[in-house]
Amino acid sequence: MRDFSQDHRWLSINTATVRKSRGVDLPLPEIIEACVRRGIRAISPWRDQVAAAGLPAISKLVKSHGLGLSGYCRGGMFPAADAAGLKAAREDNRRAVDEARELDAACLVLVVGGLPGALAGRAAHKNIALARDQVTDGIAELLDYARTVRMPLAIEPLHPMYAADRACINTLEQALDVCDRLDPERSGALGVAVDVYHVWWDPKLHAQIERAGKDRLLAFHVCDWLTPTADLLNDRGMMGDGVIDIPRIRGWVEAQGFAGYSEVEIFSAANWWQRDHGEVLDTCIQRHRSAV
Amino acid sequence: MRDFSQDHRWLSINTATVRKSRGVDLPLPEIIEACVRRGIRAISPWRDQVAAAGLPAISKLVKSHGLGLSGYCRGGMFPAADAAGLKAAREDNRRAVDEARELDAACLVLVVGGLPGALAGRAAHKNIALARDQVTDGIAELLDYARTVRMPLAIEPLHPMYAADRACINTLEQALDVCDRLDPERSGALGVAVDVYHVWWDPKLHAQIERAGKDRLLAFHVCDWLTPTADLLNDRGMMGDGVIDIPRIRGWVEAQGFAGYSEVEIFSAANWWQRDHGEVLDTCIQRHRSAV
Repeated sequence: MRDFSQDHRWLSINTATVRKSRGVDLPLPEIIEACVRRGIRAISPWRDQVAAAGLPAISKLVKSHGLGLSGYCRGGMFPAADAAGLKAAREDNRRAVDEARELDAACLVLVVGGLPGALAGRAAHKNIALARDQVTDGIAELLDYARTVRMPLAIEPLHPMYAADRACINTLEQALDVCDRLDPERSGALGVAVDVYHVWWDPKLHAQIERAGKDRLLAFHVCDWLTPTADLLNDRGMMGDGVIDIPRIRGWVEAQGFAGYSEVEIFSAANWWQRDHGEVLDTCIQRHRSAV
Repeated sequence: MRDFSQDHRWLSINTATVRKSRGVDLPLPEIIEACVRRGIRAISPWRDQVAAAGLPAISKLVKSHGLGLSGYCRGGMFPAADAAGLKAAREDNRRAVDEARELDAACLVLVVGGLPGALAGRAAHKNIALARDQVTDGIAELLDYARTVRMPLAIEPLHPMYAADRACINTLEQALDVCDRLDPERSGALGVAVDVYHVWWDPKLHAQIERAGKDRLLAFHVCDWLTPTADLLNDRGMMGDGVIDIPRIRGWVEAQGFAGYSEVEIFSAANWWQRDHGEVLDTCIQRHRSAV
């Protein structure tokens, strides 16, 4: 297991972590400059942040700094209530692959979607098995395209509390079942993003990380589970502030040969987004050393 | 599958559902009277509500009305940070078995506990595997006692969002693994409580219900998953108001031979607890017919 206590060379910042500074939206170019100033070598930007600044500008900025992308957030949201919705998702996902390719991301992270309409509080139906079938079909089709441009797809199992509205793939086992079905040859084109927040509770976690192996472990995300958790979405804690034994899980992942970045991904409406982004990044660096 | 549309003979009310009426604590004797007036044949009371009214008084009241108990809430909370804590949990659980016996409950429901101290926001450690071992040991010991008084124990897997602070048994598969280990002969002394709120998201739900079989299916609880869910604990929705396909899951459970009550268990601080309990009970009856 790598020693993270001496430096932060394996720290990546998911840019949602500093989406806001002192409660105000922070443009992606400023996030990038703040990371570069601190010797942070990689980020994982969100599509909406890239779009707001313009893909060409971000591509140029990233390349000029030699900044790596541990992932690109995000593709997915495959299920839909009708054919038009499925087609729109398909096209949007191809664009996401193209953007990830332009930015030379390590992978496109897939948050696969749940019941159509549920995110807006109006689920079109209650058939989660159907949504899961649409997800598998959507990934299968996207995979064909992603292979042609050599962009790996990383299925991110989301915590079961997001099954209805954000992702109906909710365990690592389930994600790996999809990988085995669509990429049985373990080509590296399809794998998983392991986010400790989503999977830490899983009694089968260690076994499924071993099942995944190096071929399928495309990304590793960290933050912490707070007790109490005040909000289902925006209360992801800073590493060390919660109950997840992050080093233990990182040890399991690295035992498989994973040697990539630990990507910090914190959504924190009431806490970290209210602080200055410089303070947040400095804390990420410190906690990456002490708690990851 | 039984037809629930014509009557509510298989409705049971978990008394947490009407813990408050118009925002004010409602004593258990009043809850019981309100249920009996509506022809509700069973309840599942909470220990604190029983204690407040006195066990002998509740026992007498229940028996005089011929009211059934679909379960007794609850034993569990096995993990502790030290030997004194483990001993206290052991003794308290024996008392819970005795109370359940006195009330002639169908089973004692076990909410097994999580990381010691986490419920108070100060987890003593981050070793969830240790907590799970303590849970298995605690159930094993309690089972020996419960067998002597013929009180079945029902392990309730709780939603993974409660893994840290309320229950570190989080899937039906995990609960059944414990059952297989401690009661391999499927004696009926140990089984599970299937609460749709906790398990609806699980891609292995159907298969694990089949694995459980009639011997292990000791209780069936219903409410609904709301989108959005505003609070991790106290935002359980009324059946029909959310995204859970309750009849589908009930069909799976009944296909195994389960023929007991559907127990309505709603914690709803912002909604149902603010209404008059009569209105809440009438709504439970109506939704039991239309949405369960």
